[in-house]
Formats: sequence, structure tokens, C-alpha cells
Amino acid sequence: MRVSFQTITFKGGKVRILDQTLLPFQIVYRDLQTVQEVAEAIKNLRVRGAPLIGVTAAYGIALCAKNSKTKDYHTFKKEIESAVSLIRGTRPTAHNLFYALKRMEKIIERHESVESLKNNLLVEAEKMRKEDELLCEKIGENGFELIKDKKTILTHCNAGALATCGIGTALAPIYKAKERGINISVFVPETRPWLQGARLTAWELKQHWIPVTLIVDSARGYVLYKKMVNCCIVGADRIAKNGDVANKIGTYPLAVVAKENNIPFYVAAPSNTFDDNIESGEQINIEQRQENEVSEIQGIKITSDGISVFNPVFDITPAKYITGYITEKGVKFSNVK
Amino acid sequence: MRVSFQTITFKGGKVRILDQTLLPFQIVYRDLQTVQEVAEAIKNLRVRGAPLIGVTAAYGIALCAKNSKTKDYHTFKKEIESAVSLIRGTRPTAHNLFYALKRMEKIIERHESVESLKNNLLVEAEKMRKEDELLCEKIGENGFELIKDKKTILTHCNAGALATCGIGTALAPIYKAKERGINISVFVPETRPWLQGARLTAWELKQHWIPVTLIVDSARGYVLYKKMVNCCIVGADRIAKNGDVANKIGTYPLAVVAKENNIPFYVAAPSNTFDDNIESGEQINIEQRQENEVSEIQGIKITSDGISVFNPVFDITPAKYITGYITEKGVKFSNVK
Repeated sequence: MRVSFQTITFKGGKVRILDQTLLPFQIVYRDLQTVQEVAEAIKNLRVRGAPLIGVTAAYGIALCAKNSKTKDYHTFKKEIESAVSLIRGTRPTAHNLFYALKRMEKIIERHESVESLKNNLLVEAEKMRKEDELLCEKIGENGFELIKDKKTILTHCNAGALATCGIGTALAPIYKAKERGINISVFVPETRPWLQGARLTAWELKQHWIPVTLIVDSARGYVLYKKMVNCCIVGADRIAKNGDVANKIGTYPLAVVAKENNIPFYVAAPSNTFDDNIESGEQINIEQRQENEVSEIQGIKITSDGISVFNPVFDITPAKYITGYITEKGVKFSNVK
Repeated sequence: MRVSFQTITFKGGKVRILDQTLLPFQIVYRDLQTVQEVAEAIKNLRVRGAPLIGVTAAYGIALCAKNSKTKDYHTFKKEIESAVSLIRGTRPTAHNLFYALKRMEKIIERHESVESLKNNLLVEAEKMRKEDELLCEKIGENGFELIKDKKTILTHCNAGALATCGIGTALAPIYKAKERGINISVFVPETRPWLQGARLTAWELKQHWIPVTLIVDSARGYVLYKKMVNCCIVGADRIAKNGDVANKIGTYPLAVVAKENNIPFYVAAPSNTFDDNIESGEQINIEQRQENEVSEIQGIKITSDGISVFNPVFDITPAKYITGYITEKGVKFSNVK
């Protein structure tokens, strides 16, 4: 399947992104010319989704290298290191960001001339983009076997093509089914505060002729209780060694209620989302974002002035609620009962 | 405690309501002059909350009676019966609406002159308003004993003063604590689609100097998992004989996750919310409302055109997830484990 948009490319010496803050009302590609602009784009969610954040981070480093005017290797290296540090500080939860930066740092270690670094950092970023596309394909194929007989699936947030450089993670198996003429309907929770479901997933699926039903996040319980869906698939921002998953706020209660109703709950993510340095979800840093993401919607106030807001944008789903993990390597069913 | 607003009164031959569609940005009292206007106000949520819907329904009938020009008893009775039928069709889930209409029908049966009916229907409506105020007080006192040592409470939707003619149901114990100088903090989920939490509960609690923290509905799981609250209290729209509760969409998953985290989950409601004709929650009629409540927020579109929406506005919480029921008669702990 060909995706109808390109989330990220490197063109004419610039990082071109589809600005996801404007979707679905405006389709605007934005050329990022400096690593500062790349950092801003990640921080302000112009690009989002763990795999795409990773690739964008890599391009940011490559862009910084390309832009450098210096011919002195040590000055150059310092510039790159400071770019790595800038990008590292943008968002704390998605492991793919740190994974991507680590790969770029390995390139830095291996090359000792400015020119060779400039070339090889860009080659590595391009490689990561292509890899991500392939990872999505494989996740799609592996997940397809699990869902091919399901009529209706519930997802959460956006772990689709817009979150990656390919056909997505959680949505990839649905696209693979579509390729084979199997029509699966998708319940899409709106995903407050940032409305990734209403704005991104609903639009993306509709672009590819997949039937969508939008619900408020609170209605997920009703849909599960009434057995209106056959399984749940979500993405992941970081997976601990014990299988605990950090993902968009609201994933944890969804998994609990799915289990309570005996509905399978799958997490789809590339292996680079697994963090071998983290024993359990308790250790994962949960990003908290600004209050106005909650107190306003599309710039319109929805509450009185002076109301305190608590806005954690991820939660931890303990492994015991997860039926299985779909990665590029296959499906690993959870051992915990 | 004196509530800083009046949700409903009968003044100068009109039903005066606080228009809840405009809160918290505009405080507008609206005079309803006909039963059609009362029906519109209930249907379009200008007044909402199960107890308040009941009292409004009663006033609607009294208003119709008062407005009638006929002196013929049978014509008059037909007018009133058609008003009952109009109001009955406004909203299907809250039992209090049907309870109130039944009480008005009993008055109709008992009086056989136009003048006596005009008087007595208004007397009954006024009585119900005062009763509701008293029911709230008693629920507050009974609930207070349960929560007096709790630092932080999570509610859902608005089962506060704005949902009643008094100090509310779910929020009444918190107000009773406040009267005694005990400050309980309240986590308020925004309650999509209609934002009763963000617009009404947050405003109402702030008006009465109760500390509020607003969260998105999806963040309730995180707050429970992290033990940031000591208990949950919600209201109810209808309670079946077996203890199953119909309440605002999102109540069911909240109760499931509360139980999973050993956090007590209470339902506060007057006895007239209990429906003795309904064996279990399965038989309760769940209202589904229009798509644009989900696809728009405050009139602003949040998704692409042509996306299907499913918008059930209540769900059923089976009795097994409920720790206890707080009514005007006391606290009844759930037997089901």
C-alpha cells in the first residue's frame, strides 16, 4: 500500500515534514532549515509518534552537520554534540528518540573528518527512515495474522502512518488486511488532550478507505462492554524489560477494561521501542505538558480561568494487561496471566 | 452552605433556569414561558443532571397548567397529558424525570377541577424542588462520614449543585466537609463530549472555594494507578434493582479501574433514582445524542468531514464495581464482591 502523504523527507538540504498540528484541516509541508527548528517541531508536536520522533531526531543531527560552516573537526564535533543535547531535551518518554540519537552518536565516534561525518550522518538518518518503513511493513504482516478474522478493532491515539515513515505500527495490520481485500472497521477514540484520534487517525484511515467510527475517550468502556470490538491494538512509546508499556494517556484504563471483558489487547511497536535499561514501567519518565492543552481546545477555552490542570500525556500499562506484542520479529504473547 | 446560584425557580409565572449551556463563561438566567420551552431546555441540556431534570419536568407541567386558557376540565386534562407526553420524550435515561412525571400524574388523578389542578400541580412542583434540596443535604451528611478523612476525591461529570436544587449528590459530602472546615481536593475529569466537568464542576467547586484539578477523561486511569485520590464519588441517572448504575459515559471504565486499584467507588443519588421496574442495567435505555457533540467542541470542528460518530452519553456500571450507594437514607454497601 502506498501512503497518501510523506511524514518526513530530506529535500534540497532541508528536513521537510508534514505539519501535524494543522491536520486534518490543512495539509502543510514545512521545510525545517536548522536543528533548532527540528527541535521545535518535535517539542510542539509538528511531528509526533515514537518512530517518527526517532527519525526526525536523526535528520536533525544530519541537518546540523550539513549546515556547519566550520572545517575544524573539534569545533564541528562540539556543534554536533550540542545538537544531540538539544534534541535529547525535546521529549522524555519515547524511547525511539534516544535510540536514534545513540545511533547518530555511534556514527560520530566512527568518523574523524568533517566531510565524512557530514555524509555519514545523513546516510544514517536516511537509513533509519527506510528501516522504519520496512519495520512497519513487517509489523503489518505479523499483526495481520492476528487480526485477519476480526471485524472491528479499537485503537487509541495515532500509531498509524502519521506516527512513522511507513504504514504505521498499530494500524499497519489493518492496512495489510485492506491490501488483501479484508475490510476491518476501526473505532477511534478522539484522544484528548491533543486529539490525535479525531484529527489524525480518523483522517489517515479515511484517506485509505478504512471505515472509521469516532468516539470520545470515555466511550471506550461502553464499546468494550457491549463487545462492539473484537480486539484492541495500540502503539508504544517505550517498553520496559518486564513488558510494561508507556503509551498515550488513556492506554492503561483501556487495557484494564479490555482484560475485564476478555478482549485481546495488543501492543504493536518496532524493537527499538524496547528499552533494555529500564526494568519496569515505574522507571519510565512520564512527560507532563502545558495546562492549556487541557484548558483549551483548538485555542478555545473550555473552563474558567484559574483552574489547575494536571496533564500527564502518557501512562504505564503493566504487562499483565497485555495479550501480546507485535514487532517486526513476530508476535510475542505475554507470559503473565 | 448557601449555593451561589439557583438552578431553577418559579417566578412571576415563569420557570427561571440558569442556562447551563453557557457556563462558565456567561451566567444567564432564562425565563421559560411555555412547556415547549421547558422541553427544549431539558433536551438541549440548558438544565441537566438527573435530580434537576426531574424538578424541571414537574415545573414544566405546572407551567402548562398555569398557562391554559380553557375552563373545561376535560380539555384542560388533555392539555396537561399532552405536556406530560412532550416532557417524557425529552430524555430517556434519567429515572428522576419519569419519577417526577408520575408524581404529577398522581396529582392529576386526585383533582377534578381546573383551578384546583392549576394550584396543586404548582404546589407539587415546588414541593419537589424543596424535597430535592433536602435530599441533597441528607446525602451530604451521610456521605460526609465516608469521606471526612479523605484528602482527595475523584468525581466524574457534574453531580453537584448544578445537577440539583441543592448542594448536589456526589459533591454534597465535599460541601459538608467544607462547612466543617475540612478541605478536600477534587480531581475533575473534563467529561467529553459535553464538558460537564471542565465547564460545570470545576466552576461550581471554585465558586465555593474547593480546590480543583482538571484532567482529561483518559487521565483518570493514571490518577487512580498512582493513588493520587483516596476515593471516587459519582452521581447516577438510574439505578436498577440489582444495583447496576446508569451514569455519564465513562463511569463504567472509571469504576473498573478504581476496583483494580482498590480505591472505593461510591454512587451518590436520591432514592428516586432507583427504578424498581428495572431488574438490571441491561434493560436501561441509553441515550445516544447527535454526532456534532463529538465532532465539534464549542462549535469548532475537531475532525474531518464525513467521519462517523458513535455518541452514547451514558454507560452501565455493574453493581460488582460499586463499593456503596449514598442516599438520603444512609449508606448501603454493595454485597457483591
